[in-house]
Amino acid sequence: MKKIYDSFAKQGLMKLLQANLKSVEDGLVVIECERNEGMTQQNGYFHAGVMTSIADSACGYAAHTKMKEGKDVLSVEFKINFLKPADTDKIIAIGKVLQSGKTLTVCEGSVYDAKHEVLLARMTATMISVDSR
Amino acid sequence: MKKIYDSFAKQGLMKLLQANLKSVEDGLVVIECERNEGMTQQNGYFHAGVMTSIADSACGYAAHTKMKEGKDVLSVEFKINFLKPADTDKIIAIGKVLQSGKTLTVCEGSVYDAKHEVLLARMTATMISVDSR
Amino acid sequence: MKKIYDSFAKQGLMKLLQANLKSVEDGLVVIECERNEGMTQQNGYFHAGVMTSIADSACGYAAHTKMKEGKDVLSVEFKINFLKPADTDKIIAIGKVLQSGKTLTVCEGSVYDAKHEVLLARMTATMISVDSR
Amino acid sequence: MKKIYDSFAKQGLMKLLQANLKSVEDGLVVIECERNEGMTQQNGYFHAGVMTSIADSACGYAAHTKMKEGKDVLSVEFKINFLKPADTDKIIAIGKVLQSGKTLTVCEGSVYDAKHEVLLARMTATMISVDSR
Repeated sequence: MKKIYDSFAKQGLMKLLQANLKSVEDGLVVIECERNEGMTQQNGYFHAGVMTSIADSACGYAAHTKMKEGKDVLSVEFKINFLKPADTDKIIAIGKVLQSGKTLTVCEGSVYDAKHEVLLARMTATMISVDSR
Repeated sequence: MKKIYDSFAKQGLMKLLQANLKSVEDGLVVIECERNEGMTQQNGYFHAGVMTSIADSACGYAAHTKMKEGKDVLSVEFKINFLKPADTDKIIAIGKVLQSGKTLTVCEGSVYDAKHEVLLARMTATMISVDSR
Repeated sequence: MKKIYDSFAKQGLMKLLQANLKSVEDGLVVIECERNEGMTQQNGYFHAGVMTSIADSACGYAAHTKMKEGKDVLSVEFKINFLKPADTDKIIAIGKVLQSGKTLTVCEGSVYDAKHEVLLARMTATMISVDSR
Repeated sequence: MKKIYDSFAKQGLMKLLQANLKSVEDGLVVIECERNEGMTQQNGYFHAGVMTSIADSACGYAAHTKMKEGKDVLSVEFKINFLKPADTDKIIAIGKVLQSGKTLTVCEGSVYDAKHEVLLARMTATMISVDSR
């Protein structure tokens, strides 16, 4: 899955968020992000945008594992529900493929707290396979 | 609308993204963000997570303008469709209240390119009014 | 736009809901549905499922107007927010194309009350163009 | 869980769709629906609106099992991805509570084929607790 690590390294936002591509398996990708001042909303919790960004990347790369060589992945849409305030030191986003087709792949993203005990957010995302630039 | 500017200043993520709270009106908030290396996905476009983060904040603060003193806003959920690759130097997110109730406020977020000509993404978001910490 | 009327006539659910294909224009479709016992949820309002069904068909056919001959439309996904209880005698669903591509079309659906004054629900939907069976 | 069966019996749409409330447990509700002419879209598959209607009711009643006496449930919003064409004789919708709070409950809905082998659609829904009329 070298293509996933290479692509992740090119995502400037993941670097800015100091996000870590923890694992890549067939149809399953895990990304972690530690809390610092740059991650917060007005109460000091993780901003919804940070949870969403790493869940989106986790879902996108989970979809990417199912795509042929020479293909790249773009987000068509996603929806995310926030279940608990993200008052934790680290968040863990897990992207999992629900259904993979030639053009579209549907993924489920789950964001957990540092101890991986509390489900903080749940995403469903549609990803599209496009020709690499 | 001083409360909105104060709250925005506390959002570490908005600072990290060098986002600018451009305008705040009753039920309508505009946030801008310029492209730099920290904003990108693997092709150099704005990452979906950046568009989503500023659209979420714009929707949240649009909802906040409708809430009573002593109340704060949290994101319940949002969904966003990406209509065009965000290959532009700046993005402009507009959050607009569709329906405001005592507890929940539903907003529509639109993300445009630097020239404000191309609709890049469309969000619908549910925001909840909670007691300030 | 004969193809739209022909396809609508084949949708058994639209017949069951006694829904009426009110107008078809380029990228814009209107469907109406009158309240009777079979439309309700437990309080006698229109069931969310009825609003969703006609909004989905309106969005699907709005997308269909943009597709080439020999193509059919399927729903990839949609999200709908319910803004007001639908305590009205008729609902009017308007499907409008936001962005149309070769494969995917993104639409916005709006559901109004009988007087077309109150926005009851707002949908965003992704539709896909497939070869006709 | 008598309150759930009573409420289901009042949903005119469930009667119209000949839907069957199969089981009600704490935080988990199953509804089934058999295919006939009134369920279809233009290709004879189950209409997205039918899958959505029973998934919405299943999620709503799953949320309802978590609510206090004297409370009723309304749909705030939901999003549903369609994973496979629903070319099957019966659909089974399972609504499951992901997170339950005093005001809002978030549910996950899954729609399966008659053999309960193929995941046809996945919903996430936000439900609100309101005072009974």
